[in-house]
Amino acid sequence: MSSIFGQAYRIATWGESHGGGVGVMIDGCPAGIPLSEEMIQFELDRRRPGQSEIVTPRKEADVCEILSGTFQGVTLGTSIAILVRNKDARPAAYEEMAVNYRPSHADYTYEAKYGLRNWQGGGRASARETIGRVAAAAVAQQVIKTLCPDLEVLAWVKSIQDLNASVDHSTITKEQIESNIVRTGDTAMVDTMIDRIKEVRGDGNSIGGVVECIVRGCPAGLGAPVFDKLDAELAKAMLSIPATKGFEVGSGFSGTLQTGREHNDAFYMEGDRVRTKTNNSGGIQGGISNGENLIFRVAFKPTATIMSEQDTVNSDKEDSTLKGRGRHDACVLPRAVPMVEAMVNLVLCDHLLRQRGQNGKITFK
Amino acid sequence: MSSIFGQAYRIATWGESHGGGVGVMIDGCPAGIPLSEEMIQFELDRRRPGQSEIVTPRKEADVCEILSGTFQGVTLGTSIAILVRNKDARPAAYEEMAVNYRPSHADYTYEAKYGLRNWQGGGRASARETIGRVAAAAVAQQVIKTLCPDLEVLAWVKSIQDLNASVDHSTITKEQIESNIVRTGDTAMVDTMIDRIKEVRGDGNSIGGVVECIVRGCPAGLGAPVFDKLDAELAKAMLSIPATKGFEVGSGFSGTLQTGREHNDAFYMEGDRVRTKTNNSGGIQGGISNGENLIFRVAFKPTATIMSEQDTVNSDKEDSTLKGRGRHDACVLPRAVPMVEAMVNLVLCDHLLRQRGQNGKITFK
Amino acid sequence: MSSIFGQAYRIATWGESHGGGVGVMIDGCPAGIPLSEEMIQFELDRRRPGQSEIVTPRKEADVCEILSGTFQGVTLGTSIAILVRNKDARPAAYEEMAVNYRPSHADYTYEAKYGLRNWQGGGRASARETIGRVAAAAVAQQVIKTLCPDLEVLAWVKSIQDLNASVDHSTITKEQIESNIVRTGDTAMVDTMIDRIKEVRGDGNSIGGVVECIVRGCPAGLGAPVFDKLDAELAKAMLSIPATKGFEVGSGFSGTLQTGREHNDAFYMEGDRVRTKTNNSGGIQGGISNGENLIFRVAFKPTATIMSEQDTVNSDKEDSTLKGRGRHDACVLPRAVPMVEAMVNLVLCDHLLRQRGQNGKITFK
Amino acid sequence: MSSIFGQAYRIATWGESHGGGVGVMIDGCPAGIPLSEEMIQFELDRRRPGQSEIVTPRKEADVCEILSGTFQGVTLGTSIAILVRNKDARPAAYEEMAVNYRPSHADYTYEAKYGLRNWQGGGRASARETIGRVAAAAVAQQVIKTLCPDLEVLAWVKSIQDLNASVDHSTITKEQIESNIVRTGDTAMVDTMIDRIKEVRGDGNSIGGVVECIVRGCPAGLGAPVFDKLDAELAKAMLSIPATKGFEVGSGFSGTLQTGREHNDAFYMEGDRVRTKTNNSGGIQGGISNGENLIFRVAFKPTATIMSEQDTVNSDKEDSTLKGRGRHDACVLPRAVPMVEAMVNLVLCDHLLRQRGQNGKITFK
Repeated sequence: MSSIFGQAYRIATWGESHGGGVGVMIDGCPAGIPLSEEMIQFELDRRRPGQSEIVTPRKEADVCEILSGTFQGVTLGTSIAILVRNKDARPAAYEEMAVNYRPSHADYTYEAKYGLRNWQGGGRASARETIGRVAAAAVAQQVIKTLCPDLEVLAWVKSIQDLNASVDHSTITKEQIESNIVRTGDTAMVDTMIDRIKEVRGDGNSIGGVVECIVRGCPAGLGAPVFDKLDAELAKAMLSIPATKGFEVGSGFSGTLQTGREHNDAFYMEGDRVRTKTNNSGGIQGGISNGENLIFRVAFKPTATIMSEQDTVNSDKEDSTLKGRGRHDACVLPRAVPMVEAMVNLVLCDHLLRQRGQNGKITFK
Repeated sequence: MSSIFGQAYRIATWGESHGGGVGVMIDGCPAGIPLSEEMIQFELDRRRPGQSEIVTPRKEADVCEILSGTFQGVTLGTSIAILVRNKDARPAAYEEMAVNYRPSHADYTYEAKYGLRNWQGGGRASARETIGRVAAAAVAQQVIKTLCPDLEVLAWVKSIQDLNASVDHSTITKEQIESNIVRTGDTAMVDTMIDRIKEVRGDGNSIGGVVECIVRGCPAGLGAPVFDKLDAELAKAMLSIPATKGFEVGSGFSGTLQTGREHNDAFYMEGDRVRTKTNNSGGIQGGISNGENLIFRVAFKPTATIMSEQDTVNSDKEDSTLKGRGRHDACVLPRAVPMVEAMVNLVLCDHLLRQRGQNGKITFK
Repeated sequence: MSSIFGQAYRIATWGESHGGGVGVMIDGCPAGIPLSEEMIQFELDRRRPGQSEIVTPRKEADVCEILSGTFQGVTLGTSIAILVRNKDARPAAYEEMAVNYRPSHADYTYEAKYGLRNWQGGGRASARETIGRVAAAAVAQQVIKTLCPDLEVLAWVKSIQDLNASVDHSTITKEQIESNIVRTGDTAMVDTMIDRIKEVRGDGNSIGGVVECIVRGCPAGLGAPVFDKLDAELAKAMLSIPATKGFEVGSGFSGTLQTGREHNDAFYMEGDRVRTKTNNSGGIQGGISNGENLIFRVAFKPTATIMSEQDTVNSDKEDSTLKGRGRHDACVLPRAVPMVEAMVNLVLCDHLLRQRGQNGKITFK
Repeated sequence: MSSIFGQAYRIATWGESHGGGVGVMIDGCPAGIPLSEEMIQFELDRRRPGQSEIVTPRKEADVCEILSGTFQGVTLGTSIAILVRNKDARPAAYEEMAVNYRPSHADYTYEAKYGLRNWQGGGRASARETIGRVAAAAVAQQVIKTLCPDLEVLAWVKSIQDLNASVDHSTITKEQIESNIVRTGDTAMVDTMIDRIKEVRGDGNSIGGVVECIVRGCPAGLGAPVFDKLDAELAKAMLSIPATKGFEVGSGFSGTLQTGREHNDAFYMEGDRVRTKTNNSGGIQGGISNGENLIFRVAFKPTATIMSEQDTVNSDKEDSTLKGRGRHDACVLPRAVPMVEAMVNLVLCDHLLRQRGQNGKITFK
């Protein structure tokens, strides 16, 4: 369904940028998992607006409330609901969008689909929608911590427009990434990237880039044959994030330039563990994790809402023009990092429980 | 579930490369749709092995039988089952794989997941698995033809390794693509591409490439907010095809180099129809189709099974070597074209029925 | 999933009797349906505690808030969330249940399943859980009203213990049922039933009974072959209501005493409409509605929580005794009526949308 | 979906009584479960026509073929497909049904839903459809045997019309039930029941009855709160079997005559095991199994197809008459027993895997 995701660990999200609030209901969470509002708040704070000088200045504390599903600090095994109220909504800033469709935004397509739309903010197409995902993923993270204590999900800004970060997958740490407001893994690039974002914003324009993500300590055996391949599930999860335009795993598009002899990841034994010498597979073979790091990249387009006049049409189906107003990110990348991580946690938690359900244990040696 | 796909038009596939056969069950197909084995066979013939000199020589007629769900030439509305028998299985060719894991294939990961595997052929990781999808998609195509007679799905080989096809999206036809065994849209590249495939195969090696796909006549309003965005569904569908490594829609990864001002697709009126001047969105905005052509690309890695000796480990967890045997494609691209189209048809048919169910009609103007 | 119901019209509920609140998220609701909090409140008031002298005196106004999914008085087509806060929770009243399992309640089984439980109130096994369903069903009712204006769902108390109501299915009205606090369709039985409930309550005991339900104006063609037969869906829906022990459709268990010649419903033409002379089928044949009234009955057991001492065991696994405290219904039947109607509305709305999705129209003549 | 059942152990069935065959695809089955065609055939033989003098004389050996999903005698963890060919189809016997709707059968409702129907045999409404379920349940039984070796599902004919069997739940054995062709648990009633069936059949009439079922050794903790209560799942499963009219668990409808004091099942300790003194709950409390025997009953109506002339209408919507032909059971009860058991096995297997997935182990003590 449109706002429901996952099979064994299933979440249902709701909420527009303007209205009572946004939230999520989680079904299938194991019982006895330690959970507090602080744990969830920590992740919400990483995605919230106003967190730094290079993101949207919308002032939202995004304080979460657990409505159900926990008791005395642990999960009950029954459905968990989490709510975040909207506080700093400014519908007046959107009145112009009531008539004019924002180019490359969802205004026109929502109206084409439903015959109407909530023009105050982006409705369900607002990035604010991702709050529900991030909250549910913070819970998923606690489940994963219980089942796979060594599993670590790490995403960073790989590029902003043509500015590329150079990151060593074997040494990069969450601390390094979180140490800068761009959330890039290459500290040498931080100032250049910040300058670029400010420059573009000053020009009433916007830019995009690429987020890279690895998962360390992922057990072998996650994902399922045919349709629910782990990379297929990740691809859907990533393309469901607003503003994404592409996904590639391991060697990705550049792998098409190699021959099989170069591209194949030779196996070898490291003690009693099966390893691969290279990792063009990105940790997934035949749709199932092989115990190596998962590696993938996600393309984010330049933000659609820009502070410049653009040609468009209005809801009376006449040619028109529109100049963005409101508070928007000129570059979504820094805030996209926790969204990417959130979706990875949701996919992995779901597949960990599915694997335990079907095959009884999480890793075969 | 692992071998079940779609919500309103749901398919369930089965079958290994070696065993009784492969097939599919379709649930939710509308009643009264004209359907014959010939319609299905036509698409199966496009994906079958042995169809030309540049694909695997496995001799399989892949003759389909409709087991249920039709009566007097039309669908009954109840579940449809389609079966294709395996004929030219040669388990002996795989005996070496019983002990040695093929690098970058699914041998090791299936064993990690399930504790055992069918080493005769690739099991469910064989490309033979896609027969069920192609058959179900041939049925989906008939449904689409009834609901959207103008909708046309066109995929072609965009590149093989570094050889790029130049294709005009507005004029390319199915006839042009099918006129050559590579299934590229650029007839000037046909011979070069064929030569490359033969050369690589002669060297016991393999190569990959990119398939590009457009959908003409796609109604606005398909796809759903948040998780079932049309591009997210397509991404999952594409990454579920064996050997895929990436997916990008519209401007894709290269769109990250542009600014918002360049990237945004300005709206304008063409008669009473809302159009966009450019199509960096690839026909999808906010996860919902906007009536422009859908455009996306899929990366296929070089075939994992190569006729050269490679380092690997065996099921006793010892270092070993393996040289591929059996009948394999040195380049899957020509046969990937109908697989890509099949998955598009499945996704679109599902979302057409979902849209009709929820909102009562298929296109709002 | 445990707290998710429906396919095309899918709801996800949450909330315990003690905690932040109870609520529901609805996915798949058509756009443009008129919806207000008043419409939902009307149905919540019919199920709320404290509404009359014969139900639990727990004081809950059960005021609902629509958190998302509507705009300017109509549904947006995106997910709708509705929240009802818990106000009159009294955890102290449940302290004894922290150690002693209530006989025939869910205390022991939740602990067996999850290894722990929320002993404050009944957790998810509390009748308070049904608020989410009733709210979602009030929305479903609006959808049905749009699609099938003549469809009417009518449930009433058919029996309380051995006291049987005599009800004429062709003339009974909602006004008659709602005119008395027992919600029976036989006004001659009202006082006798009220007296019985008061008598039993005075004795610290409880009683059950049967709710009967008809649906008038149900289009032919709802329900689906094999597993999602309309009666199978209703059976699941009814047995999911707390305290239910049985479901029968049409002739039900007593139909097993007849021969086929007596039991078969002969068809005849009434104008251009196919009718049946009798309705032992309860309006459903082969799992699909035939246009006659749907008719079924649901058995509710005597309330488990009684104000008398009972033998039980405690969580230390020792024999023990327990005497109920807190505020409970001595007879759930009057409040069960809106719960039964709610589940019918959910099932019918789901199948209306499914039928429209698959077959394009809701009734074939 | 219409022909898909289950969540973790999911089956998809197909096939009409006339056509290529009937079958099932199973998704989510654990790997490494011993499975042979003989195991499946054993259960198919219990449901097949022609097995005794009191069932339909249609001659079908119903030989099954495993098409996929097993290797060297065990399951692979991937999708399993099983096919049974139709052999003794006699479409000519149904020609009259092409125009006349059989009263209380699915002819009219299928046409109302789909606009057409397969009039050769009952289409998907034929009892032949249950072959897929029985085959999938035979596989489920193997999974259950691995996870819960002591679990035993026992169903028998409790009544045929007014003839009631007296059965002791603590001593009844599968051997006793299978020792007679009626499959009743009361050997003293066998001849009387057989005589009644023959008498009614001789009169061109039909009769129904009740199947009772217990499950011994069912672990506590199966089923899930709210919608997927174990009794709700069983209710749906049972009402999905052709010809069923009612379901009751534990005390069922007669429990509505008792007071809470009589009806509640007092807990006591038996060694370290929590037991109940009575079992009015039928082994399920709050929708979750409590470790006692599951007990429920299912009502089957008299067979709709009778060999007597009946009033009906035809597809031209004119009043008409019809006299049944073809080969039919005058009483479905003996063959209903394995169908009931099959659906129980499917539900329990699904919930065992769901419980293992969510909570990691199958029984908490």
